[in-house]
Parts: sequence; structure tokens; C-alpha cells
Amino acid sequence: MSLKLTGGIILATGENGEFQVLEGSCICIEDKYIKYIGPDRDAPECDAEKDMRGMILMPGLVNAHGHGPMTLLRGVGGGLALQEWLETAIFPIEAKLTPKDIEIGERWAVMEMLAGGTTCVSEMYDFPEATWEVLKGSGIKGNVCRVGLSFSETEEIPKNRFNECVNIVKNLKDDDDRVISEFCLHSEYLTNEGFVRKIVEANKSLHTNINVHVSETRREHEECKQRHGGLTPIGYLDKMGILDENTYAAHCVWVEDSDIEIMKEKKVSPVFNPSSNCKLASGFAPIDKMLEKGLNVAIGTDGCASNDNLNMFEELHLGSLLIKNKASDATVLNAGQVLKMATVNGARALGRTDTGELKVGKRADIIAVSMDKPHMYPAFDIMNLLVYSAQASDVVMTMVDGKILYENGIYKTIDAEKARFEMKDAIARIY
Amino acid sequence: MSLKLTGGIILATGENGEFQVLEGSCICIEDKYIKYIGPDRDAPECDAEKDMRGMILMPGLVNAHGHGPMTLLRGVGGGLALQEWLETAIFPIEAKLTPKDIEIGERWAVMEMLAGGTTCVSEMYDFPEATWEVLKGSGIKGNVCRVGLSFSETEEIPKNRFNECVNIVKNLKDDDDRVISEFCLHSEYLTNEGFVRKIVEANKSLHTNINVHVSETRREHEECKQRHGGLTPIGYLDKMGILDENTYAAHCVWVEDSDIEIMKEKKVSPVFNPSSNCKLASGFAPIDKMLEKGLNVAIGTDGCASNDNLNMFEELHLGSLLIKNKASDATVLNAGQVLKMATVNGARALGRTDTGELKVGKRADIIAVSMDKPHMYPAFDIMNLLVYSAQASDVVMTMVDGKILYENGIYKTIDAEKARFEMKDAIARIY
Repeated sequence: MSLKLTGGIILATGENGEFQVLEGSCICIEDKYIKYIGPDRDAPECDAEKDMRGMILMPGLVNAHGHGPMTLLRGVGGGLALQEWLETAIFPIEAKLTPKDIEIGERWAVMEMLAGGTTCVSEMYDFPEATWEVLKGSGIKGNVCRVGLSFSETEEIPKNRFNECVNIVKNLKDDDDRVISEFCLHSEYLTNEGFVRKIVEANKSLHTNINVHVSETRREHEECKQRHGGLTPIGYLDKMGILDENTYAAHCVWVEDSDIEIMKEKKVSPVFNPSSNCKLASGFAPIDKMLEKGLNVAIGTDGCASNDNLNMFEELHLGSLLIKNKASDATVLNAGQVLKMATVNGARALGRTDTGELKVGKRADIIAVSMDKPHMYPAFDIMNLLVYSAQASDVVMTMVDGKILYENGIYKTIDAEKARFEMKDAIARIY
Repeated sequence: MSLKLTGGIILATGENGEFQVLEGSCICIEDKYIKYIGPDRDAPECDAEKDMRGMILMPGLVNAHGHGPMTLLRGVGGGLALQEWLETAIFPIEAKLTPKDIEIGERWAVMEMLAGGTTCVSEMYDFPEATWEVLKGSGIKGNVCRVGLSFSETEEIPKNRFNECVNIVKNLKDDDDRVISEFCLHSEYLTNEGFVRKIVEANKSLHTNINVHVSETRREHEECKQRHGGLTPIGYLDKMGILDENTYAAHCVWVEDSDIEIMKEKKVSPVFNPSSNCKLASGFAPIDKMLEKGLNVAIGTDGCASNDNLNMFEELHLGSLLIKNKASDATVLNAGQVLKMATVNGARALGRTDTGELKVGKRADIIAVSMDKPHMYPAFDIMNLLVYSAQASDVVMTMVDGKILYENGIYKTIDAEKARFEMKDAIARIY
């Protein structure tokens, strides 16, 4: 089955790796792949055509740091600082959650993400098997892990937890690599050296990604230095031998220049979480410096309890504006850079080289953004329009691996009525 | 004609001036006014009822600083710093605009604003008569002015310009005070002392507002101090006798503690423009300090060439997040404060005491925000939900003075097809 998307404005990736805005062109999709992007006149015949006039066709967005099931905790503890927020508002609720709740919360998250143009997400949360099932069933792409935690080296928990981490990586396998299982180290402050060493050792044969929180708050960053003879979280993780191109590090708010050098050398991908960092007043990540050094910076929403949504268009917008102002330089984090962060960089961070760009041979992970509303006209610069004018609600179609999962408010793979009913039921039960 | 809005969650204002979230209540509207807010059982009979289940009813948003016709320049010169942006990208296009262009651009702006829940706007731009006509015709509320400029005291322009400023205030009168004409001083740096004195003198008998740009950039702020013996823009305007409760000051990014004291004493309303200040990298306005001092802080979008939209929900969201992070304090600019800034504070800044709140006796300027989409559930805290989760596209109804101007994509007072045709025609003509 082949499909031709015609009449749209296409945000393709050129031979040089830079975005190209194409008009009078079409995209041909065969099975899961992009087979052709170029002028209509040279396009091959396809089994079907879809008229995309008045829309921008762009790569699906990659949410490179999330905790999807936290839709169940949307807005809980709003206005509190990180530590108090976690201890008084979040942890008591989380302690009650069951695998069924996780399934329900993740499905609700996937609905929000698909409607806003996200085609791939990194999920770090309890009961990853439940998350895995929802991702598989919905058709979206995602990375899942068992959260790697070890409060003390002498307790029984770390061993069980370690085995659970390994089992997730070993047992959850998708022939198609649409959903990927990977390792996670929650952070320097919630793992001990023994645990970290075991994960590093295990990954020598399993070859997957490691998802880790790094230097989210100043306190965490400074306490790490006290604990580890002046080593920052990045310095410590480097010493432990974790850092390589398969590691992606959320937040990186308080990383120092020397940390950026290490991340560059070891090809670690930092993940920027603008809304969450602002809402919890954690600080401004030095994203402009990271980009200047050539790091593969991605973007994520974080959990929607500290955001309070999973709206990647908002992250693009906020992220760009925030760093321009912090750097006192209107030219940094331009629209093209930010769009890359949310697409191809995110894909690379999540260990995916076959998506994140509209290019022949890549997976057909494509979204359509309508230019119909007043705020989307005039459209002098498509990339500026996407970053500074668009809303997530302008997304009218979300396609993953050539399959339309969402279109004009309709979910093709999710029973939205049932999902809503179950979500309301879960909220009533939990609270 | 009376109308009852039933079944919605109501963001009313209580006797103490604070927001109250009401359920099981309704709003009754008679002619232009709110006649009743309270429990359904005590509500008076009305001629008609409208079912607002699944929606939040809140005061319409007040965009307290805009340059509406700049929709014609949306996204022009993206990524440039303020001065270069103005001189190379904006001014050459603006020089070409005709009153007909202004009419077309303003109508397009009003469409975007109504769709996003804005019920009142402050407009500062050329050809204010054209803007006035569009505001009058569309049913939205607004303040308009002739931009007060006087580059040199010896030129002929200032006198003409002064007369034009006065004529706008004298000649554009609306019996209903729905559209208000007022004075404007562009800024300290684009007006001379003679001109400022004439405006102050004229306003002694005309008793309207004065709309002014203050300390938007560091350069402007520092150059003012050099020109005026150390006086900041606020200090200078104070010396000139302009500052009182009828003055509202856009940007205020570089105001100093002493300026905040003066604004407090003189009851000047500062207007925060988060997106524009970030996009042009102008700096972070000390909004947390202003609120702490009890200033009547309002919010605006600025022109959509430096934004690039007129989305007040984005301003609420960005404004709150930005200042929390800048202040390293997650508790500042909470959702309730930000919602006040965008409603009642904005109304007060624009000299309007009869709107900006849902309260008996106030004008019925009401919007309905749908809670239907996944990102709007769960809804533990309605104010948090509006600021941190909602998108402008969640607005499903916009009512001004008891009249529905926009509902579910339909404009009741604007021929949207014609407006779009004219906009496209104008863009083709200008560029």
C-alpha cells in the first residue's frame, strides 16, 4: 500500500542535513517508509492520494523526556518548589498507583501527545510493562525503562530493582523497534555506586540506551559535588563509565562548562525541559552554550504534573524564547535549531537513526499542521510560524510508520470514549 | 432580552475581590450586564438558556498592550535584535501601509483575539480612525490613540502630530464607552519635552488615559539617564507630570526599585509583555517585585511581529513560568495572580472599572473555555488548569457586553471569508 501526500508545504531535510521548505512537492509513503519527496511531476504513482493543501507537513515531534502516566497527577501541588512538591503532593499519590492506573494514565497521555503532533516519546515511570502495552497498542513510538533506583547498597531493594531493570530490557522486545526498552538511572542522588556499576556492566552486552536525570536543581548539583569530592553529576557519571552516545540526560540545568565539554566528548544528548524547569523554578539550562559546542540537544515535556501538559509546541516556543532572553541575544535558538531539537535530535537521543526527518528512506513519522486559523497567516517563514505562532491544536494529522493515528480530533487506534471513562473512574478511585 | 448560562464552572470574583470557583451555579445576563451569579435554585427566570456544561466561564481577557494591524507583519525579521529588527525589517514595510491596510490588518487581529478569548485590547498604531471603525464594527472593546511622537521641537511635524493626537481624543467618541480614545506618548526617546508638556496640558481638560512605552530595552533606559541627568524614563515622566492612575506603561523591563516606588505612589499600571520581551531578548521585567509592591500589573501581547501571535493564553503561561524561574521561586506569579493580571488588572489599566470580573453589575464580557480535550483533564485546580494546561484554542465562546461575538469557530460580527480574502490581497500588495 502506497500513499501520496499532495499540496502541503513540506519541511524536508536536505542533503546537508538542514531543513528545506518545499512547495509544489509531494511525499510518497510505502508501507512504513518515505519513498519519495520532491516535485509533483516526478513523483511515482501511488495507490492513494491525500490532499494536504493549507497544511505544513513536518517530522513528528519527539518528546525526549516524559513521565506519561503523570496525567493522573496533572496540576497536583501547583506552585510548590521541587522538594516540597515531590514529598507532600506527588509521592503520596504515586504510592497508590497500580499497573491498571498506569495503563489508563499512559493512554490518556498518548491521546494528548498524538493530538499535539508527538510521534515518539521517552517514558520513565513505574510499571513499564503497562506503559509498553499502551505504546504498542496505540501505534506511537516510545522508549520505556524500569526506573533505576538504589537508595542504599545494603538493602534488598537494589538487587530486586536491578533485576527488574534488566528484565525489562531483556523481555520487552519489539521486532519493529517501534517501542524500545532501555536502562534508566534515576539520578546520581538516587543511585549508589554499586548499582550504577551493575547497570554499566549489564549494558555492555545489552547495548541499549541509558536515560538519566542530571543536575535538575542547584541543590542536587552542589550536594553531588560534596558527596563525590567535587565531581558534578556529569563528572561522577563519567567516572562511573556510563557516558557515551547511548546516554541521554534530562534537565542539565546546572551543568558547568566542563560538563558540557564532557558531554561533547562522550556524545551524550542533553534534554531541555523548559516548562518544567520554569514551573519548579529550577533554573535556566545553558542550552545556547550546548548548541554552540555542537551537542545533540533534545526537548521534552517532563511529567505533566510539573508542566502541566504534554504540549511539545509549547516547549518549542517557551524553550526558544526563554534562552534568547536569558542569553540577551535574539539570534540564539532560532526556529530551525529548535525544530531540530524537537525532531531529529530527539530521535537521535532516543537511539533512533531512522526517524525525526522527512527524507527518503526514513520512517514515515509525519504530522500535518493546519494554516487555516488567523494566527497562522501571513506565513512568510514556515519555521518561525511553527515555533512562534502555532498552537498544538493546529495539528490535524499525526502519522507514525505510515499509519494515521490521529486526524481532526479522531483517534484511529484508541477508543477515546472508553479511555475517558476509565480516566474519570481512576481519578475518582485514587483521590 | 435576558440569557442564563447554566452548567459551567464559573470563575467569579467574590466580595473580597478574590477569585471564587463556583459549581452548580449560573450566570444571568440582561442586556449588557451581569444580573446574577449564584446557585441555580435562586436564579431569576431568563428569556433564554445556554448549556455550558464541560466549560469554564471566566472573564474575557484584556490584552493591555498591542499593535493590532501588525498582523500584516507577522514574523517579519524573526531572530533580529530590537533596533535592527525595527530599522531593517519593520519600518520599511510600515512606511507603505495605508488606512485600508490598517483596517484589514486590525480586522485580522480581532479575529485572532476573539478566537483566543480576548474581549478588550489596547491598540497603539498609525491611522487610529481605521482601527476605531474595526473595533466598533466587530463588537470587541478597545482603546485607541494617535501615536504621540516628536523627534525634534523645531520641526513642523510635532504640531501636526499633537493636533492629530488631540483630535482623536476629541472626535472619536462612543456613547457606550466600548471603544475609548486616549492619548499616547510613544516613549521618552521619541518625544521631546515640549510635546510631552502639551499632552499633559491637553489631558487636564480631556481626562483620558495615557499609553506609553517605558524602559523596554537597557539601551533606551540608560540613554534616558544620560539625556536627563540620571533620570530614568519613569523618573523623567514623573518630573514631566504625566504619571497618575490614568497612565499605563508597556514593558517596564529595566525599571529600577525607585521606579517601582514611583509607579506605586502615582498608581501607574505597568504592562508585562513576556513573549515580545523574550523574542527580542529585551530582558526580564521585575514583575514579582511589582506585584509584591501591590502595583496593578497587566499583560499584553505587543505587536505580533515580535511575538508572533496575539495569544493571551500563551502570555499568561509564559509570563508566569518566566518570572518564577527568574526569581528562583516557584511560588511567585501564581495562577490566580496571573489571571487577575490578564483580566481585572488589564481592565483597570485601560481605565475600565466596569469589566474584567464576573460579578453582578459588571459588563457581561465572558469567555467559555472547553474542558473537553485530554490536556484539560483532570481538573483539580481550575486556575492552574487555565494558566498551565489550556491553549487559546480551548476557547469556544467569546461574549462582549452580553453579545456572543465568536462561537466554535464562527464569527458573528465579521465576514471571515471576506476578511481572509482582503488580508491575502493586502499581503500580496504590500510585499
